[in-house]
Amino acid sequence: MKIAVFAGDGIGPEVTAQAVRVLNALAIDGLEMVEGDVGGAAYYKHGHPLPEATLEIARNVDGILFGAVGDFSCDHLERALRPEQAILGLRKALSLFANLRPAKLFAGMEGFSALRPEVASAIDLLIVRELNGDVYFGEKGMRKTEDGRRQGWDMMSYAEDEVRRIAHEGFKAAQKRGGKLCSVDKANVLETSQLWRDVVIEVSAEYPDVELSHMYVDNAAMQLVKSPGQFDVIVTGNLFGDILSDQASMCVGSIGLLASASLGTRQTEYGTVGLYEPIHGSAPDIAGQNKANPMATILSAAMLLRHSLGLGEQADRIEAAVAKALADGIRGGDLGGNASTSEIGDAVLARL
Amino acid sequence: MKIAVFAGDGIGPEVTAQAVRVLNALAIDGLEMVEGDVGGAAYYKHGHPLPEATLEIARNVDGILFGAVGDFSCDHLERALRPEQAILGLRKALSLFANLRPAKLFAGMEGFSALRPEVASAIDLLIVRELNGDVYFGEKGMRKTEDGRRQGWDMMSYAEDEVRRIAHEGFKAAQKRGGKLCSVDKANVLETSQLWRDVVIEVSAEYPDVELSHMYVDNAAMQLVKSPGQFDVIVTGNLFGDILSDQASMCVGSIGLLASASLGTRQTEYGTVGLYEPIHGSAPDIAGQNKANPMATILSAAMLLRHSLGLGEQADRIEAAVAKALADGIRGGDLGGNASTSEIGDAVLARL
Ligand SMILES: CC(C)[C@H](C(=O)O)[C@@H](O)C(=O)O
Ligand SMILES: CC(C)[C@H](C(=O)O)[C@@H](O)C(=O)O
Repeated sequence: MKIAVFAGDGIGPEVTAQAVRVLNALAIDGLEMVEGDVGGAAYYKHGHPLPEATLEIARNVDGILFGAVGDFSCDHLERALRPEQAILGLRKALSLFANLRPAKLFAGMEGFSALRPEVASAIDLLIVRELNGDVYFGEKGMRKTEDGRRQGWDMMSYAEDEVRRIAHEGFKAAQKRGGKLCSVDKANVLETSQLWRDVVIEVSAEYPDVELSHMYVDNAAMQLVKSPGQFDVIVTGNLFGDILSDQASMCVGSIGLLASASLGTRQTEYGTVGLYEPIHGSAPDIAGQNKANPMATILSAAMLLRHSLGLGEQADRIEAAVAKALADGIRGGDLGGNASTSEIGDAVLARL
Repeated sequence: MKIAVFAGDGIGPEVTAQAVRVLNALAIDGLEMVEGDVGGAAYYKHGHPLPEATLEIARNVDGILFGAVGDFSCDHLERALRPEQAILGLRKALSLFANLRPAKLFAGMEGFSALRPEVASAIDLLIVRELNGDVYFGEKGMRKTEDGRRQGWDMMSYAEDEVRRIAHEGFKAAQKRGGKLCSVDKANVLETSQLWRDVVIEVSAEYPDVELSHMYVDNAAMQLVKSPGQFDVIVTGNLFGDILSDQASMCVGSIGLLASASLGTRQTEYGTVGLYEPIHGSAPDIAGQNKANPMATILSAAMLLRHSLGLGEQADRIEAAVAKALADGIRGGDLGGNASTSEIGDAVLARL
C-alpha cells in the first residue's frame, strides 16, 4: 500500500504534516508514503507546477493526499505554468472524474454559518461534481476577430459517456443516502446541459429506487440559500459544481472542517484510486504561522483510507477523534479559537 | 412616449396588470401603452414565443415592461420555440447588454432572509450582468463524435468591446454608489475570463476614483453567503451573472420585491431604451389565483420611468408608495401575509 503526499503551497505543508502524523500514529501495516512537489512550490524548484517526477509518483500510488496550491507571485505566468495546473493536470492524468463534496453541519457549529441556525443545521448534502470535462478541458485560446478585436474563447462540451459515468456515481451515492438525486444544469440555454439532462434521464431507468429531479443552476444557487436542507445528493458538471460546492460549503460555515475526494477510474486491490484534499485553499496570508486548522486535511486522510485503501475502520477512528476534539472545545482560529496547527494535531492524536 | 407591456406566462398577466393600473393612476401626459404576446402564451397563439409582431412593437417603443415567461408544457419543444427564447431574443434584438440587479434588504424584512438578520441587513449591492454575449449566444449544437457518441457543445467567448462597454457600466454604477467594483470571473481556468480581466483592468485607468478588485466565481459564491455586506457593485459575465444575481436576490429573502432593468445601446429623447422585469419567474403553481405579489413588477415599472422615460420623480412616487404599503403591513403570500394581487395593487394605488 502506497500513498503520495503532495503538500503544495501556502498552508499546504503545515496541514498535511499534521495529517501525516495522524496516519503514522495508526501504524498501518505496510503503508508507504512518498512526497512530491506541486504548485508554485514545484514551479520555483523545477520550473513546472506538475513536474514529470510528481506525475510519475501519482501514477504509481493507491491514493494521494493533497494540501493546497495557489501563489499570487505566479499570477503573471502563462496559464500552463500556474499553480492551479497541478490540480487540473492530476485530475486529467489520473482520470479523477468524480469529485465528492459532502457538506454537513458538525454538531455544535451552528454559530459559524451565516445562515440562521435552523436553516444551517438542516444541511446534510453531497455534491457529486464531474471533474474531467466541461469548459475546463475543452479547446480554448485568445484570437483576433476579423476586424482585429481581441477575443477570449473556451469550448464547453460533454459527451454522453462522460455524463453517464458521473450520473451513475450520483445515483449510487443517493442509494446509499436519502434516495434523492437532484441534477443541476442550464438546459434552457445550453446544448451541453440538454445532453446532460437527456443522459441523466436515461441512466435513471436503472435506479427506480432513486427519486430524480432537475434544477436550473440559477435556481439551485437560490435554493441553496433559501432551504439547503431540501437536498440529498446533487450531481452536476465541472463548472456549475465548482460554484455550487463552494457555496454549499460556506453554508455550513466552518470550511476548515470540510474534506473532499476526487475518485478516478482505476481500481487497485484495496479500493479506488483517488486524490483527497481539504476544500480550503492555500491561504497565503496565514502560511507558515502555525495558525491554519488542519482538521479538513486530517479528515481528507480519513476519506483516503476509506475509499482508496479499504480501511474504513481506521477512517472511522480518525473521524471520531476529530469529532471528539471539536466536542471538547478544541478550536482553530477559523472557528474563533486559538489552538495552533500543531496543537490541533496533538489534540486529534490524543483522541485516536 | 410609448411603452410596451409584454405580460407573458403564468402570473405574468396578473402582476403586470397591477403595474399598469399604477402607471395609469399617474396620468402621465402623452404616455401610450401597447401590449404584445411573448413566451408560451405567444407560442400557443402564433406558433412562436417571440412573434415578428411583438419584435416590431419592441423596436418602436421607449421601454418595455415585461412580466414573466416559462411554461412546462413547452419543455418538449425544440429550443428555438421555448418560452425563454422570448427574453433571450429581446435581449439580443434590442442590444440589451446591461442587466442591473439591485439587492438590498427592505426595512423590516430581516425575517424573510435565510441569512442571520445581521448578515442580511448589511446587504446593499448591485449586480451588473452582461447580457448579450458569453456562452448564451455563442454557436452551439448537438453532434456525434467520430466514434459515434452524442455530444452537446456551446462556445463561450467575449470580445474586448463587449467587455469594455459592460465594464464602463460597472465603473459608472460604482461611482454613483459606494465607489467599489468587484469583477467576477474564472480567469484561473478560462481564456474568456482572462480577456475579461485584462479589459476590466484597462478600463479601470479611466476610473481612478473607483476601487477595483477581482474575485473568482467560486469564491464570490462563497463570499455572497459569508458576508454579502462586503460588496458594493459586482460586474460579471452573462453566465456567472445569472447564477450570482439569483443567489444574491435570495440572500435578501423577499424575491417578490425585487425588480431588474436590462438597458440597451439606444438612446431616445427621454432616456435609455430598456426592458424591466421582476426577478421572479412565471410561478405556474399559483397562476390565475390572484395570489402573486405584484410589488416587484410595480417596482420594475418605476425603474422604467426613471431609466427609459426620464421621469425620476414619478418613479420615486411609486417606490415610496410600495415602501409605505410594506411599512403598513401589507404582505403578499410570499411574505407570509394574505393580501391578494389586486389588494396589493389597491394598497399601492391608495398610497401614491
Ligand atoms: C484551483 C481551481 C482550478 C479549482 C477548480 O476550479 O476546479 C478549485 O476551485 C477547485 O474547486 O478545486
Ligand atoms: C429564462 C432564462 C433564459 C434567463 C437567463 O438565464 O438569463 C433567466 O434565468 C434570467 O436570469 O433572466
